[in-house]
Amino acid sequence: MTEQQLIEQLTRDIVLQQPSSIKGVGDDAAVIAHNAQHTLVASNMLLEGVHFDLTYTPLKHLGYKAAVVNFSDIAAMNGLPRQLLVSMGVSAKMTVDKIEEIYSGIRLACEHYNVDIVGGDTSTSLTGLTLSLTAIGVCAPEQITYRTGAQPTDLLCLTGSLGAAYMGLLLLEREKKVFEAGGKQPQLQGYDYVIEKYLKPKARVDIVESLHEEGLVPSAMIDISKGLAADTLLLCEQSKVGARLYIDRIPIAHDTNAAAQEMNLNPMTAVLNGGEDYELLFTLPVALHDKIKNLGKVDIIGHIVAAEQGCCLVSQTGEDIPLTTISTTA
Amino acid sequence: MTEQQLIEQLTRDIVLQQPSSIKGVGDDAAVIAHNAQHTLVASNMLLEGVHFDLTYTPLKHLGYKAAVVNFSDIAAMNGLPRQLLVSMGVSAKMTVDKIEEIYSGIRLACEHYNVDIVGGDTSTSLTGLTLSLTAIGVCAPEQITYRTGAQPTDLLCLTGSLGAAYMGLLLLEREKKVFEAGGKQPQLQGYDYVIEKYLKPKARVDIVESLHEEGLVPSAMIDISKGLAADTLLLCEQSKVGARLYIDRIPIAHDTNAAAQEMNLNPMTAVLNGGEDYELLFTLPVALHDKIKNLGKVDIIGHIVAAEQGCCLVSQTGEDIPLTTISTTA
Repeated sequence: MTEQQLIEQLTRDIVLQQPSSIKGVGDDAAVIAHNAQHTLVASNMLLEGVHFDLTYTPLKHLGYKAAVVNFSDIAAMNGLPRQLLVSMGVSAKMTVDKIEEIYSGIRLACEHYNVDIVGGDTSTSLTGLTLSLTAIGVCAPEQITYRTGAQPTDLLCLTGSLGAAYMGLLLLEREKKVFEAGGKQPQLQGYDYVIEKYLKPKARVDIVESLHEEGLVPSAMIDISKGLAADTLLLCEQSKVGARLYIDRIPIAHDTNAAAQEMNLNPMTAVLNGGEDYELLFTLPVALHDKIKNLGKVDIIGHIVAAEQGCCLVSQTGEDIPLTTISTTA
Repeated sequence: MTEQQLIEQLTRDIVLQQPSSIKGVGDDAAVIAHNAQHTLVASNMLLEGVHFDLTYTPLKHLGYKAAVVNFSDIAAMNGLPRQLLVSMGVSAKMTVDKIEEIYSGIRLACEHYNVDIVGGDTSTSLTGLTLSLTAIGVCAPEQITYRTGAQPTDLLCLTGSLGAAYMGLLLLEREKKVFEAGGKQPQLQGYDYVIEKYLKPKARVDIVESLHEEGLVPSAMIDISKGLAADTLLLCEQSKVGARLYIDRIPIAHDTNAAAQEMNLNPMTAVLNGGEDYELLFTLPVALHDKIKNLGKVDIIGHIVAAEQGCCLVSQTGEDIPLTTISTTA
């Protein structure tokens, strides 16, 4: 099968849904009309052995996640994803069925988030699997949210709970080692929640829609891909501010705590340094406190302070713990 | 060096030049304002050992070409490239200097074509080098040129000359074999033209600008990446037409002919099946014949016929040679 035939097979029944998708797969470039809205563009490259391990990542989940990671970047700008370009380098030993499985995961994510696949590139690789996806989204110019606008006294808001994805990864890694050592089948019953958070994360496009409905534009926003510590530091650095995060306000799911306990790990390590939760961290002026409550699915976990005060976790006993330290040693 | 530091080093002195580049590298996504114009998006993935051979491809040229290939896709839609996203997977054994060299080639191409680097992703690879670039361009909605609009009697127009890139590749491959067998240094003097056409191709954005200046909108257009045979067949298939190409009108550079002669190869093989010339093949109504002459740098190499007549080369003696046959046997 030639690359051209493979691309045709993978894309044969794609139907464009977005009015802004003027032309999709099949020409030299895709054509998009965003008119008065600004276009947002984000790319992520996923490499076998670096970003994923095919021994425990089902191909369909891999495709799904590769798409969601990009949609999350668009959401973190307060935008809505609309189009996706999919480039794949697949090893010659990978069957067409398996390539279709990856693609079906990407397509499932696109259906779920109402995004059109409009282009990309597919090629045979001499080595492992490479996925490089580019998401295109829209946002009204006045609603675009950078990482740079947080102000002292702004509230630090977080969607969902943290740490689950990392616990899911640790469990999958542990079961892989057990399996490799003795050939025992992986024991993953009861861990559905944390494993799904790792293998099939959500992009919080729903929160972006809620923000738009409530007429709220965050002063700064970032998605939690590296972990709460690194992403808070990044947001604060780019906004030239500091932050105080209250440990007892950071939501951790019951199943995440249970998994951490079993693995003998402090769940805060997963929260601060685990990453891949793809929840949104954003800031809003304290005057909007009541409106934030209307968003429903958001917790206020701290507030912004002047840059000189730095970034601190505040413990249950009121102790300040510099976030940098945690970030590098935990 | 962390990936974050590497990205910062590579992108540290990027200055956005395009008014439409609202926000570049450094946030979750890039922001682009194309207003009333349509956005064009094209992606290409280049894999070590498949699309390039580092034994004879200088890293700077590799970066340059990776960018140009994408600009050529935008040009083939009658658009102008404006932004670029650069994703790289680099093996751990590659030094920062070498990564910088690739990036400097990409940046040189961007300067030359007046394109802003606005994002991407950089990651360590366990295997070879992977480049995945996405170009973003603009075009007025009424000027966008697909592969689908060619009509019988339309003239087939070609920019530049063909076959040089393939001859350059063959020479580089030959010298690599000689070098590997006996350790002799590559003898490439006198082949500058064909080697440069392979290593440092041009995207014919200049022709797109000329078309805009002359008020000409091609009925169909494609860039020659696979070879004149495959790309003509693709354009004809998508336009549901046939074509007659006159062999003696297809321009081949003197240096391409000379290299072909030395390599004992029919230069038409390079023209038809070599590819990577990145010239533009486009169609315009025959009534615009005089205006095409004003473009200056364009040859009329044939014309479009009804689909039933198929795609033929017409030899010097007036013989018809089906293009499909040549495409598969030459």
